[in-house]
Amino acid sequence: MSRVALICGGGQFPLVAARAAQKRGLDVFLLGLRGVASQEIEAFPHIWLAIGQLGAAFREISSRDIRNVCLIGGLGRPEFSDLRLDWGGIKRLPEIFSLLKGGDNHTLKGVIALFESEGLKVIGVDSLAPELLAAEGPMNRLPLPADLAEDLSLGRRCLGDLSAYDCGQALVVARRRIIAIEAVEGTDGMLARVAELREIGRWRAKGPAGLLVKAPKAGQDLRVDLPAIGPETVAAAARGGLRGLAVAAGKVLVLDRAEIAAQAESAGLFLYGFSTELPA
Amino acid sequence: MSRVALICGGGQFPLVAARAAQKRGLDVFLLGLRGVASQEIEAFPHIWLAIGQLGAAFREISSRDIRNVCLIGGLGRPEFSDLRLDWGGIKRLPEIFSLLKGGDNHTLKGVIALFESEGLKVIGVDSLAPELLAAEGPMNRLPLPADLAEDLSLGRRCLGDLSAYDCGQALVVARRRIIAIEAVEGTDGMLARVAELREIGRWRAKGPAGLLVKAPKAGQDLRVDLPAIGPETVAAAARGGLRGLAVAAGKVLVLDRAEIAAQAESAGLFLYGFSTELPA
Repeated sequence: MSRVALICGGGQFPLVAARAAQKRGLDVFLLGLRGVASQEIEAFPHIWLAIGQLGAAFREISSRDIRNVCLIGGLGRPEFSDLRLDWGGIKRLPEIFSLLKGGDNHTLKGVIALFESEGLKVIGVDSLAPELLAAEGPMNRLPLPADLAEDLSLGRRCLGDLSAYDCGQALVVARRRIIAIEAVEGTDGMLARVAELREIGRWRAKGPAGLLVKAPKAGQDLRVDLPAIGPETVAAAARGGLRGLAVAAGKVLVLDRAEIAAQAESAGLFLYGFSTELPA
Repeated sequence: MSRVALICGGGQFPLVAARAAQKRGLDVFLLGLRGVASQEIEAFPHIWLAIGQLGAAFREISSRDIRNVCLIGGLGRPEFSDLRLDWGGIKRLPEIFSLLKGGDNHTLKGVIALFESEGLKVIGVDSLAPELLAAEGPMNRLPLPADLAEDLSLGRRCLGDLSAYDCGQALVVARRRIIAIEAVEGTDGMLARVAELREIGRWRAKGPAGLLVKAPKAGQDLRVDLPAIGPETVAAAARGGLRGLAVAAGKVLVLDRAEIAAQAESAGLFLYGFSTELPA
């Protein structure tokens, strides 16, 4: 692998990943989704495409003799009417219809299959730049408090059971009690709710309490759907009055790790990577 | 059973239940939790008590030769510092400490045990007035749409699995996708979120979509912790753009059933009671 195409959704992740890949000596080529990806992708070799222009995407990639593709960055769930299909997209209409139904996992598996059917290899960010993922153990100088071990275990088991329903990558747990479970609102939306629940006294706890637990779903394809935390997540956790964040080591993007670990520490929050090799 | 004491939390439920019990010829005696219960309990034989005045509660009940107690109405989760303990409460401090930890189920089991240790029988609203619970099948003229059967089944199974974590009595599911899961925010809070998710386009669907599924947790003691829907639930479901509500027949309070069924119907929402005897 010396060349890699990045299909870029929104946010900073595609840019950080592209820079990290370049640092490792890879030739990167960015395909920015119009209206979604940051203008800053233009700092790299790039083109712009509408969502659904599959024919153009495959053509541009193969004409550059690229075999590895990485799908990265945020992308709202497109409705069929959002798609600007080119002929390459229209040829694949039945697949596209079917992949827009069901949970996110189902949709993403379909997207991967579309690329693979063109002989491309879909790779994850972990192959491009493993340093962007959560480390194992404490990531700042605040350890995981011993009295939270049981809550972490409860949270991990609950997320594991929710996996079967293709929903829920995160939850907040405090003193054996599940305070909030994420579904469509996303982790930051859930954390904003936790802050509200405390404000209105619906969840009552003195001082910092509870922790965020975040992990991929079982069976989630980490190549295209890596859970992530960013500075907003840490800020939202602080506003929610949590004690810290526990994320699956090697399976959650932490961008930028050093920066976020420091941000958490100065907010008094631990940032811990739990090993998913060990049972919850 | 000819006499029954109702320990009254907030809202209209205690009043409706007291009226229904009187209609069936029962002598009711209401113990209103001060600052929580509605002033309207004064229309019935009653006293007012602070939360934690267990000694007084037991004395008042036994002096009236009452054996059956029904705990009914909303009650925020009290913090230890909220309790105004009398000697009867202080005697039971260890139990009280232990029951304030853990999920709601755990707390309520502890409350029941406290009453039972005084020789009282804790009964559910279903014994007082079964007509207050969800009926089986359609409760208004709108049937459960056939294409929602699979979503209902998915929702029921997901709630069943969440039961193990003592959280989650309700969720919203649409086209095999879990849109929101209730934890501490309550059903109406979750439905408000669903409305928001549609407004901001985070959940996108054309026209009415999805359904609320609500059922008690497995192992939930229905005598003291009956899930409920009221006019606010229906209004919130309508604001969320749902297609209807499905609740566990015989296990969810629907107050007032005729009124709520009509309210749902005029908002275009079905109101369906699914049998929990049948597998999801």
